[in-house]
Amino acid sequence: MPDFPEFDAAVADAAQGYLDETGLGSFLGFKTIEVGPGRMRCGLEVRPDLLNPFGMMHGGVISALVDHVLGAVCYPVVPRGTWGATTEFKLNFVAPVRSGTVVATAEILSMTRRTAIVRIDVTNDDQLVALAQGTVTLKPPKA
Amino acid sequence: MPDFPEFDAAVADAAQGYLDETGLGSFLGFKTIEVGPGRMRCGLEVRPDLLNPFGMMHGGVISALVDHVLGAVCYPVVPRGTWGATTEFKLNFVAPVRSGTVVATAEILSMTRRTAIVRIDVTNDDQLVALAQGTVTLKPPKA
Amino acid sequence: MPDFPEFDAAVADAAQGYLDETGLGSFLGFKTIEVGPGRMRCGLEVRPDLLNPFGMMHGGVISALVDHVLGAVCYPVVPRGTWGATTEFKLNFVAPVRSGTVVATAEILSMTRRTAIVRIDVTNDDQLVALAQGTVTLKPPKA
Amino acid sequence: MPDFPEFDAAVADAAQGYLDETGLGSFLGFKTIEVGPGRMRCGLEVRPDLLNPFGMMHGGVISALVDHVLGAVCYPVVPRGTWGATTEFKLNFVAPVRSGTVVATAEILSMTRRTAIVRIDVTNDDQLVALAQGTVTLKPPKA
Repeated sequence: MPDFPEFDAAVADAAQGYLDETGLGSFLGFKTIEVGPGRMRCGLEVRPDLLNPFGMMHGGVISALVDHVLGAVCYPVVPRGTWGATTEFKLNFVAPVRSGTVVATAEILSMTRRTAIVRIDVTNDDQLVALAQGTVTLKPPKA
Repeated sequence: MPDFPEFDAAVADAAQGYLDETGLGSFLGFKTIEVGPGRMRCGLEVRPDLLNPFGMMHGGVISALVDHVLGAVCYPVVPRGTWGATTEFKLNFVAPVRSGTVVATAEILSMTRRTAIVRIDVTNDDQLVALAQGTVTLKPPKA
Repeated sequence: MPDFPEFDAAVADAAQGYLDETGLGSFLGFKTIEVGPGRMRCGLEVRPDLLNPFGMMHGGVISALVDHVLGAVCYPVVPRGTWGATTEFKLNFVAPVRSGTVVATAEILSMTRRTAIVRIDVTNDDQLVALAQGTVTLKPPKA
Repeated sequence: MPDFPEFDAAVADAAQGYLDETGLGSFLGFKTIEVGPGRMRCGLEVRPDLLNPFGMMHGGVISALVDHVLGAVCYPVVPRGTWGATTEFKLNFVAPVRSGTVVATAEILSMTRRTAIVRIDVTNDDQLVALAQGTVTLKPPKA
């Protein structure tokens, strides 16, 4: 795992507010648990609105949570003014989720000026339920 | 593209109801547009609840829509009683979405008794915004 | 599929030589079949050197062929001097290969100045054996 | 990471021979370095036959090595007689390789009777050059 000399604790602190209280984060109920250098955890409680027709948590919710932490983990470790766009990810589901809390943990495995590669593990009450890997394309601010 | 002699129009007709009116489909606002043999289209209107902190549609919503059609396209073409689980997918985002309607079109490219491979194209007012490919693992009913 | 006004037939013609007669292309035996605007086909004959311990074509050979056409399809359609790097891809295997010829067909589905998204279908004597999707990152030449 | 009570040291010991000395492993020059419970390392030296037209190691070689360890890591930890097929994987390239040795390390992150999910890290003289994640579908022996 790379070092993150650019880690900005103020950006990390601010993240909880704007991620949890606006748009999709607020609507689905994402709760930021931890934001550190190159690492972020975010959780979500299972509830009826988030189920599939078979009564299990819809895979789309886990996908959305993965996409969310994949991009968000980058902001505190890039120069201010950098624009980050999630350009792709891949996700394996390994177990169904029926109740409790789902937590996604993102870790940046590789970062250059223009690209971050991130892996995400998703657990449900400590059981592994999904594994993902994706790319965030970074656009540094103009000088 | 394979043939789908198992296509069950009654299951396809029923799909719109149970997919659009329950759980996550209802909560996010997925609207089933078309369900045919090995093919399905589903749409969603952009609205404030579905945005990211930058005012664009959150990638997680597109991910959720992709996951939704990836699994759902299989039901009308498998023997009744088959259980299908989306086991993995991969998604590339190619353009941001700011307004209008997002439509995901899923096509089954390969299907055996135990596995379907599906590709999904996502458009926003006819512009391509995402491309995906994934696997549904099928569990045939017991004899 | 996008238009490719930049298609350069001279680059396409030259591709067969440098791809088939140097390095890994020559060593594995890749044969370029067709290079067109946003589209490329490349084949390979099954032989003992390319098998796995079970006597089937090693998935790694199909992976290598996919990686090969994914990058190569871009050269004739980008401005001369552009550097292209395959940054990621995803591959599903759908059937084993035992004999005959394997052909990979790459198509560019989306292309901007900096990124191309490509899908690849792999067939073995007209049966589908693998499906892939990946990204080529483009670095335009300096002015 | 799961436990691997089924780990069979005799299968692990035999792996080096049949993987390194037959078919593609022998042809490309894969060298098994370590086979443990749920973990495997395999290396390869850069040489002219493995380059792309730009003089760097062809991404297809790294893809082939990833595919190789992804399947091979499973054999010592499944019941004898189990058939394992790599059904899909996803790979991110993070740095080019010009010389030296490339080493792929595979770890099984999740394993059920029918499916293993594996992550692979690839290094070149201790620098990370690629990250992958994939699925092996397992077919248990008939009773």
